[in-house]
Amino acid sequence: MINRLIEQIKTKRAPIVVGLDPTLKLIPEHVLSKHVKEKGESLQAIADAVLEYNKALVDACADLIPAVKPQIAMYEQFGIPGLIAFKETVDYCHSKGLTVIGDIKRGDIGSTSEAYAIGHLSGVELNGKRLNGFDEDFVTVNPYLGSDGVKPFMDVCAREKKGIFVLVKTSNPSSGEFQDRVIDGRPLYEHVADKVKEWGDQLMGDSYSYVGAVVGATYPEMGAVLRKVMPKTLILVPGYGAQGGTAKDLKPFFNKDGLGAIVNSSRGIIGAYKQEKYAKFGAENYADAARQAVIDMKEDINSIF
Amino acid sequence: MINRLIEQIKTKRAPIVVGLDPTLKLIPEHVLSKHVKEKGESLQAIADAVLEYNKALVDACADLIPAVKPQIAMYEQFGIPGLIAFKETVDYCHSKGLTVIGDIKRGDIGSTSEAYAIGHLSGVELNGKRLNGFDEDFVTVNPYLGSDGVKPFMDVCAREKKGIFVLVKTSNPSSGEFQDRVIDGRPLYEHVADKVKEWGDQLMGDSYSYVGAVVGATYPEMGAVLRKVMPKTLILVPGYGAQGGTAKDLKPFFNKDGLGAIVNSSRGIIGAYKQEKYAKFGAENYADAARQAVIDMKEDINSIF
Repeated sequence: MINRLIEQIKTKRAPIVVGLDPTLKLIPEHVLSKHVKEKGESLQAIADAVLEYNKALVDACADLIPAVKPQIAMYEQFGIPGLIAFKETVDYCHSKGLTVIGDIKRGDIGSTSEAYAIGHLSGVELNGKRLNGFDEDFVTVNPYLGSDGVKPFMDVCAREKKGIFVLVKTSNPSSGEFQDRVIDGRPLYEHVADKVKEWGDQLMGDSYSYVGAVVGATYPEMGAVLRKVMPKTLILVPGYGAQGGTAKDLKPFFNKDGLGAIVNSSRGIIGAYKQEKYAKFGAENYADAARQAVIDMKEDINSIF
Repeated sequence: MINRLIEQIKTKRAPIVVGLDPTLKLIPEHVLSKHVKEKGESLQAIADAVLEYNKALVDACADLIPAVKPQIAMYEQFGIPGLIAFKETVDYCHSKGLTVIGDIKRGDIGSTSEAYAIGHLSGVELNGKRLNGFDEDFVTVNPYLGSDGVKPFMDVCAREKKGIFVLVKTSNPSSGEFQDRVIDGRPLYEHVADKVKEWGDQLMGDSYSYVGAVVGATYPEMGAVLRKVMPKTLILVPGYGAQGGTAKDLKPFFNKDGLGAIVNSSRGIIGAYKQEKYAKFGAENYADAARQAVIDMKEDINSIF
């Protein structure tokens, strides 16, 4: 899966992932109200609106991008109907040839992490029959519990040829509270990066590892250091656009081959229709606005090479 | 909710929570095969078996215990049918008067943590109507992203009178890899505990805070230190029983009033029928075995006071 993702990034010249994070504020009013009219004020109505919104966005952007990253919290907030919409979104993206990164940030003690890995990456076996729960290609993982919270994901990835992105340095303002604390002369996130490299060396694809890292675009100087600590690690970079990261900030995350990072934008793409720059599209044409925003993001990012 | 939980612990003389973590290995064979016969080898069959298993366990133990802690990973591994069984388990436990701690270990950047808090503790508002996703009383939260990953949970807790347990020192063998690293002379988990105290002071119940902590029974000497760092924090203590923690190990987690901690056992209770000690019950009577294991655990823990 990592080889395929790297290949898709090269072919499409787009080290880009679109975050499918459908909040109530982002779903266009006409889409939401149509479903509320049909199903009443219900989680089902919201979930139906989410799915319509996502499908239109995917239809408009699939040929331009290698991957999408649905943030499961944005579906989990709508309960079971929301999670069904998450699953249907994953399946729909697969049908369009996209790589799907489930942004789930799970992580627990060994047997529990194994259950998450089964649920999201492999499915469970019952009497020799494989039963799929969710079915992403990659998931994000929280490292706070150490190796035995991460290894079960790696074991499943080795079997299924799937991958993970481990949180190293997150994009949010308070990420430094614990992640930046200095241990033996180096911040915690560098120690986590050491581990990511160690784990990644055990699970290599052709040029990059099945074990990736998450490092926020909002911290470019740390990105530069982490790029060196983890040379074979694909870095998933959130925080571009709406969270404040710019193209210039992204350069340190890439290797000299122009690879090694994949930059996420969520609101900046799926909510483009709400920005002044894309207002001419109108809310009705939110998917066209998203497509234009992807084209602009691609150009912006490719300008740094 | 914290006041009610403390009251239930006192009334039932049971600082105990039963972990409802139904793995395929723990569900009694006769329960699973019955549902497989009905629904075929499917996630739905497993989910039906999970729910039957859970309900019998709850029926057998509800009068003895204040709370249950379903680990959502054990349901998420069975996809959508599994998550429906999670929700139905939460609702069933509420109908029996139990406090429900959702062991979800979520934690993300601000807006995403807010979505998790909405999904699990408050429900979403649509045109002024409240729509509940899941509906636990407490959830567990991962602190790696710092304050802005925790505060959205606290905001929802303040409104809903619900609570969280923040991971401080987890029970697994590799928890020390990052959590024990020394920063300014003290391990990371103590710095996290400082924050938990600070957050907790902002959200006090009558005697304990709405912001609790998770500290593993497998690390009693650290429990003693953390008890002092966070005197008004209810400590959720996993790792008793199957993971190796004993009653003697638990003493440091309690305050002198005999309160301040709630000890979890999962496999030790719900899988009691598989232990030699309770083999006489037989697999058919797994719920009676679980009840006896709760009685024994209560006695064991109360022996330390």
